Amino acid sequence: MTNLYDRHRPTLERALDACARRHSWTAFPESPSSKIHGEEKPALGRARFEAMLGSDYPLHQPGEAGRTGAEVSPYTGEALGITYPKMAVDTLFGAIVDAMPAWRAASPETRIGICLEILDRCAGQLFENAHATMHTSGQSYIMAFAGSGANALDRGLEALAYAHKAMADVPASALWERQFGKGGAARLEKQYRLVPRGVGVVICCATFPLWNGYPALCANLATGNPVVFKPHPSAILPVAMVTGVCREVLAQAGFDPNLVSMVADTREEPATMALLQHPATAIVDFTGSPAFGQWIEQNCAGKLVYTETAGCNSVVIESTDNLEAMASAIAHSLCQASAQMCTSVQNIHIPANGISAAGRHVSFDEVAAAIVAAVDQHLANPQVLCGTLVDAGILQTIERYRECAGQYGRVLRDSAPLDYAEFPRARTASPLILEVTETARDLYRDEIFGPVSFIIKGDSIDDCLRDATTNARERGAITSHVYSVDEAFLAKAVSAYHDAGASVACNLVGMPINFAAAYSDFHVTGLNPAGNACLTDLAFVASRFRIVQSKRMV
Amino acid sequence: MTNLYDRHRPTLERALDACARRHSWTAFPESPSSKIHGEEKPALGRARFEAMLGSDYPLHQPGEAGRTGAEVSPYTGEALGITYPKMAVDTLFGAIVDAMPAWRAASPETRIGICLEILDRCAGQLFENAHATMHTSGQSYIMAFAGSGANALDRGLEALAYAHKAMADVPASALWERQFGKGGAARLEKQYRLVPRGVGVVICCATFPLWNGYPALCANLATGNPVVFKPHPSAILPVAMVTGVCREVLAQAGFDPNLVSMVADTREEPATMALLQHPATAIVDFTGSPAFGQWIEQNCAGKLVYTETAGCNSVVIESTDNLEAMASAIAHSLCQASAQMCTSVQNIHIPANGISAAGRHVSFDEVAAAIVAAVDQHLANPQVLCGTLVDAGILQTIERYRECAGQYGRVLRDSAPLDYAEFPRARTASPLILEVTETARDLYRDEIFGPVSFIIKGDSIDDCLRDATTNARERGAITSHVYSVDEAFLAKAVSAYHDAGASVACNLVGMPINFAAAYSDFHVTGLNPAGNACLTDLAFVASRFRIVQSKRMV
Repeated sequence: MTNLYDRHRPTLERALDACARRHSWTAFPESPSSKIHGEEKPALGRARFEAMLGSDYPLHQPGEAGRTGAEVSPYTGEALGITYPKMAVDTLFGAIVDAMPAWRAASPETRIGICLEILDRCAGQLFENAHATMHTSGQSYIMAFAGSGANALDRGLEALAYAHKAMADVPASALWERQFGKGGAARLEKQYRLVPRGVGVVICCATFPLWNGYPALCANLATGNPVVFKPHPSAILPVAMVTGVCREVLAQAGFDPNLVSMVADTREEPATMALLQHPATAIVDFTGSPAFGQWIEQNCAGKLVYTETAGCNSVVIESTDNLEAMASAIAHSLCQASAQMCTSVQNIHIPANGISAAGRHVSFDEVAAAIVAAVDQHLANPQVLCGTLVDAGILQTIERYRECAGQYGRVLRDSAPLDYAEFPRARTASPLILEVTETARDLYRDEIFGPVSFIIKGDSIDDCLRDATTNARERGAITSHVYSVDEAFLAKAVSAYHDAGASVACNLVGMPINFAAAYSDFHVTGLNPAGNACLTDLAFVASRFRIVQSKRMV
Repeated sequence: MTNLYDRHRPTLERALDACARRHSWTAFPESPSSKIHGEEKPALGRARFEAMLGSDYPLHQPGEAGRTGAEVSPYTGEALGITYPKMAVDTLFGAIVDAMPAWRAASPETRIGICLEILDRCAGQLFENAHATMHTSGQSYIMAFAGSGANALDRGLEALAYAHKAMADVPASALWERQFGKGGAARLEKQYRLVPRGVGVVICCATFPLWNGYPALCANLATGNPVVFKPHPSAILPVAMVTGVCREVLAQAGFDPNLVSMVADTREEPATMALLQHPATAIVDFTGSPAFGQWIEQNCAGKLVYTETAGCNSVVIESTDNLEAMASAIAHSLCQASAQMCTSVQNIHIPANGISAAGRHVSFDEVAAAIVAAVDQHLANPQVLCGTLVDAGILQTIERYRECAGQYGRVLRDSAPLDYAEFPRARTASPLILEVTETARDLYRDEIFGPVSFIIKGDSIDDCLRDATTNARERGAITSHVYSVDEAFLAKAVSAYHDAGASVACNLVGMPINFAAAYSDFHVTGLNPAGNACLTDLAFVASRFRIVQSKRMV
């Protein structure tokens, strides 16, 4: 099956080049437009998704002990009615362990070729994946095609490129000769072999099921480790579809399909702990809540753990040359995917005495009002931008913050249901924006999942920066933004965020500021509580395999 | 100080080339011969060592709260009488934390240049280091010059080369441009900065104080992390001398010398836990006992942990074309450094029905006798080969195994003191060799520190291989040896050891089989209980720093 490697090699080489130069490149176009894809593919994708509803998902794994699955569409409120195998974990792991030796023995090129083929075939099902993601994670169709689709595939390819680099760093063999003292001489042939660590458990999140799914899959599989996907109970289908592709490609390439499997569960009967604690599990990739992520980091001694969780992402506004564009950029982040992204902004810090905008003094209230107005403007076409709420609990979260607004400040913009003509029963909420002061720190230092944000009145711009960076350091941040036309302040802010272990974006306008680019943006620093791993650097892959050697006197 | 980088760049480049090709190369000649170095340097080294005896070691660190140190020479039985600062750990760490920002801000080239200069100056004190190592670790002069001297420096340079590779993989900046939909366009300048993790605690062992000392020092310091050395209470001086060099070079380069410090202690008043548990400690490098190493692996959640401990290294003898050469090679391992090396052989597996040697059938007893005879032959000049015992406890260990020999088998060769004319009070013991069967498994599956070994009579060669590889998997192995003229058996043995997570050497004769070559041998696989880290691969360095980025719209 090295022909798979040869076939896809140009793609790998372009990915390696993109990782090195970190310019804008994509192997997987993110637009679902029929102008690119034609009319047939989108329609076929929808039909395929609809055909899966109300049926047993065709995934046949050893150790099936019944069926499970209780997904409900956030758009229709209706159960998808799809069931997945409920797994006897020990039986499944037995089959996985049996599958490992042949995969371990395969060359890195063979394994990488198979991963490239998997990504390619997954790209071929992006339309049905978009519908599946929409009706589980609640994303809009456009976002589902891109964010947990094409963009995630790019991150998978990026991880594969890094895995290739790390493995290629170890030569296959060497000849070693030297004298030992007068009499002794040695001439040794040495062989170096890459050895995988063990089973990799990949825990996917509800909102972007494949965002870490593809990277963890590729990083593990390429380095020889089998993968067990553990999807979130409310977003199983997209993960099942990838699992199916992996098993098909593996089998066609002559390998055991059990090298990639899925253990689905329900909230009532969770299966995660059994996977984490299984002795064959050597690697854990986790995306989800900070609390569970940190629990895994602390309690899986002896296993490699890679986490991406969340933090209280901030914006610090010192000045701008375009108030409207800035407000629109920030507002876009508050609306996009109903602020359920790990890159969504939550805390907007503005000094009490206002800012300078294009040379004009603008009061705190004016800046806040501009952001609120921009949110309202973005809501003109909410379905594409906001999607739905993945979880009914988010409505209670909104209610809770609305109630305590009076105690800590005031409601600047209230949340309300959004109206989607196509989906009258969609679970939605427009952004709730509270105005508070630093007395509400206990409130806004938590990561709040969903469309709740704070405009925080700081005593001074220095207070704003100190508060935002302290929160990044202590509570985590995945994205941070600064707006300023003052070079000295920008430099100071970049330095302060970096000291807090956070990356920072300056003066982003005219683009979705939540966007993180594969091959270019190092996503998650690993230096603050929002996760310990990065998509993607050498550290994400280099420990997933070890080296054994044999040497022989010749 | 980039001129340090420029000055030493050819050395770094040759090291990078050696890591890639893994051929035989050294930057630091391992022979102390006056034919190479002249007469003056060796004499000066000895004089410098002697001048240090009975005095306060000149190491001035913030937080000194008295003096400590109780080293005793295994050669003379006399106290060295050298004292070192006893440290108030919190005060020291306060100073280290203050020193970090400037070091973090320094370029990788600046930091690597300083590390190269440190290695170069340490090479300049290899003669005094040899005496210091001899009279603390108990190694012979020759071994002390090489093993914990020149060879260890090479491993330090190797780690530096890998740190360079990992850091060079991240570009400093990028320009990123793309369209977002019809209206949106973005042009971003991105800067990527490498950020160290925090304080690196480096725990050195008694027998080879600098074997992991230089690699951990270089891996940490190059990637921006300060280093706190924690020497073994019985081998402080060699570590103090390196610490002194580091502080001198750092200060001369305009950096805070507290970026490298040392916390010495005594057995009665250990300081290690305070270092491991300090919140500023982010990285732990450990060489020492399997028990403590595994405790650290399990109990330092949230810190990066790299361990090299020990296992029960084995030899499996199936056949040979030269019985005498094979016996001599194995016997050398039983004698060298009194089997206190992490690569010393402990368990020699021979089938009960004997082996074929150069076509002739040789009985089990004959093979065993050949090994015993070869040991006796090596003991003709024991001081150079065996050195002394680092710890008086090893004499009790020998006594314990001698006593239980009758119960499990018999003494093939008894241990006895060795006679060193120059050092009549040297603490020594020649190899104790027991003949046992698999009924003594509980005995020989432990790592026994010191010159105790087992010739284990297996029912068949397959039993020998199964036992040896099972022990490697379950109890750890750093080196493993197979002797066979049968290609099929060699292939099977290599595969069995690899499956056990162990490297293996085949048919090594005419050279010290304990030898592990920097730039060529991946030392420790990390796949069995003898340690989790490798000297040196990308995994040893890639996680010691993280990446933060700033992006800016232009």
